[in-house]
Amino acid sequence: MKQVYNFNAGPAALPREVLEKAKEELLDFEDTGISIMEHSHRGKHYEAVHEEAKSLLKELLSIPNEYEILFLQGGASLQFAMIPMNFMKQNEKPGYILTGAWSEKALKEAKKIGEAEEIVSGKSSNYSSIPEIPSLSSDDYTYVHVTSNNTIFGTQWASFDNLEHPFLIADMSSDILSKRFPVEKFGMIYAGAQKNLGPAGVTVVIMRKDVADKANKELPTILSYETHIKNRSLYNTPPTFSIYLLKLVLEWAKDLGGLEELERRNKEKAKLIYDAIDESGGFYTGHAEKDSRSLMNITFTLQNEELTKQFLKEAQEQGFSGLAGHRSVGGCRASAYNAVPMEACKALKKFMNEFQEKQGN
Amino acid sequence: MKQVYNFNAGPAALPREVLEKAKEELLDFEDTGISIMEHSHRGKHYEAVHEEAKSLLKELLSIPNEYEILFLQGGASLQFAMIPMNFMKQNEKPGYILTGAWSEKALKEAKKIGEAEEIVSGKSSNYSSIPEIPSLSSDDYTYVHVTSNNTIFGTQWASFDNLEHPFLIADMSSDILSKRFPVEKFGMIYAGAQKNLGPAGVTVVIMRKDVADKANKELPTILSYETHIKNRSLYNTPPTFSIYLLKLVLEWAKDLGGLEELERRNKEKAKLIYDAIDESGGFYTGHAEKDSRSLMNITFTLQNEELTKQFLKEAQEQGFSGLAGHRSVGGCRASAYNAVPMEACKALKKFMNEFQEKQGN
Repeated sequence: MKQVYNFNAGPAALPREVLEKAKEELLDFEDTGISIMEHSHRGKHYEAVHEEAKSLLKELLSIPNEYEILFLQGGASLQFAMIPMNFMKQNEKPGYILTGAWSEKALKEAKKIGEAEEIVSGKSSNYSSIPEIPSLSSDDYTYVHVTSNNTIFGTQWASFDNLEHPFLIADMSSDILSKRFPVEKFGMIYAGAQKNLGPAGVTVVIMRKDVADKANKELPTILSYETHIKNRSLYNTPPTFSIYLLKLVLEWAKDLGGLEELERRNKEKAKLIYDAIDESGGFYTGHAEKDSRSLMNITFTLQNEELTKQFLKEAQEQGFSGLAGHRSVGGCRASAYNAVPMEACKALKKFMNEFQEKQGN
Repeated sequence: MKQVYNFNAGPAALPREVLEKAKEELLDFEDTGISIMEHSHRGKHYEAVHEEAKSLLKELLSIPNEYEILFLQGGASLQFAMIPMNFMKQNEKPGYILTGAWSEKALKEAKKIGEAEEIVSGKSSNYSSIPEIPSLSSDDYTYVHVTSNNTIFGTQWASFDNLEHPFLIADMSSDILSKRFPVEKFGMIYAGAQKNLGPAGVTVVIMRKDVADKANKELPTILSYETHIKNRSLYNTPPTFSIYLLKLVLEWAKDLGGLEELERRNKEKAKLIYDAIDESGGFYTGHAEKDSRSLMNITFTLQNEELTKQFLKEAQEQGFSGLAGHRSVGGCRASAYNAVPMEACKALKKFMNEFQEKQGN
């Protein structure tokens, strides 16, 4: 089999052990004679998977008891609409902290539903850093929405210490499960699975119960969080195979040593690539300010377009995939999510060094 | 491996050949060195899968050129909301033909969005048949919604000959791809995949372009059909692995001989079980009227609850799974979707005959 270093931004690399396990039991799940995909979502075999995935998430992220865990569909994009539909109140407005293209989209969708406000934005510096957060009052905002990691720009909140509001909502699609964070600070956390949690097709929502109770009731049934809470994410047929894979990923994370070990590895992995940038004497330039650098998405440019093209072409030939940056930043992006192995990051550093040397730098 | 006859109502049996192919290439898709789940949804490898799935659907169902094929998430339940959100107009109302619990749900969701009307309902006879359809005028209804097959009650439209309206919408979640039907009669057709098309997690929508053009524009982006048409179902990350499996199921259907061969088999399979009912002299009673019988879901009762329990218990012991009926009908249900093999239906007939004999009937 071809050696591939998968740096895709999402859908992204999955742990090899997870894929191997899924392959092994694809035709016969736990001696039931049929695939997990062929089991009823109301049968005991799938039910056990469903509940185990929740309890592993709870354990790994230290989710307090007063939170519900939901498995929905439609990705973060559907949450962008469901959040204002469920939580906007008349004569009140939510606030959005803009740290990239995904937060912009979230705000845009809120504005389609009602009045919503930009609190602060990093746009003027092309989202190269997480902006200073002003003090936030619950009188000012119904809820405050943040994006914890910005895939396109390669920035990430180093901590949430300066963020205080009674109803914080975080889109953690691209860094959930990558490091420890205080769940109890948030009223709601959501994440499309396709970066750190599993395959595309399932969205994890973690919601404090008091927040859910206050949600609007007059909504299409499927768009109301209450529906999914009441029915334990089984109101309609859930994406059972995606949730099964999520469970396998969570088991893998636990076996590895949980969040602390993942965080240790992620820091080491990201450092390899940031070092290649920082030690290049300007041959490579990082897009993100150092104090806002993402452990998940490392964005950098080369001196000109021609060189960038050459870099991406040679990288591709050597088995590196997914390194082309998003058009709004240009250049390159290495997404080193949980499942990207250390060796892939070492290989990339080596390639970056060698490419630079070859150019006579 | 255990012999299992999978009669689950959905998620349901998948063709063995499909699961074997998926297993074979789970870790290495087409010599790319990574799983199809790990490929970017914007890369050429997944793109080819995405387009091939559409073109196979088009070919198998003879979908005319003026239709768009979409791959969405959220199942039929999300369509129940999206349809009225997209197509309801002020001072107009849509009409719903009620043939079971799912049509009831569709109407209920429409009524949450605006004014919607029940055209005719089979509820008074506990949905044991498809009711007579009155003549429908476009002056009366913006659109007319039908459910082509009713999983819970085991009824199915034998034909759509008496159904005429310029904008017909059909929920075909449980019988799409099971027999030939006139696509061109409908403005929109939709189907959750988890019965005849693939695993849970992807919804197929087939929509005539003129209908899409008339949809409401002021909607959350993700809930607007226009968004998905413009972006070829790639506005947000699609459930790539589910769509890949859908593609494999469609290839399997084509290799088998397409809709005509599937219909021939489905008729033969259903006949085996209906014969066991009809030849039982009242030991088994079918729920559906004969002219409304479903080829997909065969519903029947035994003379009393105790006997039903015994039947289900012994069936389970002999490897039949998913035979318990829905609580609103009681008794038993055998779902014989496309992927359920002839042998399973033969085995069920044999078991039904033997169980009856054992009871001294």
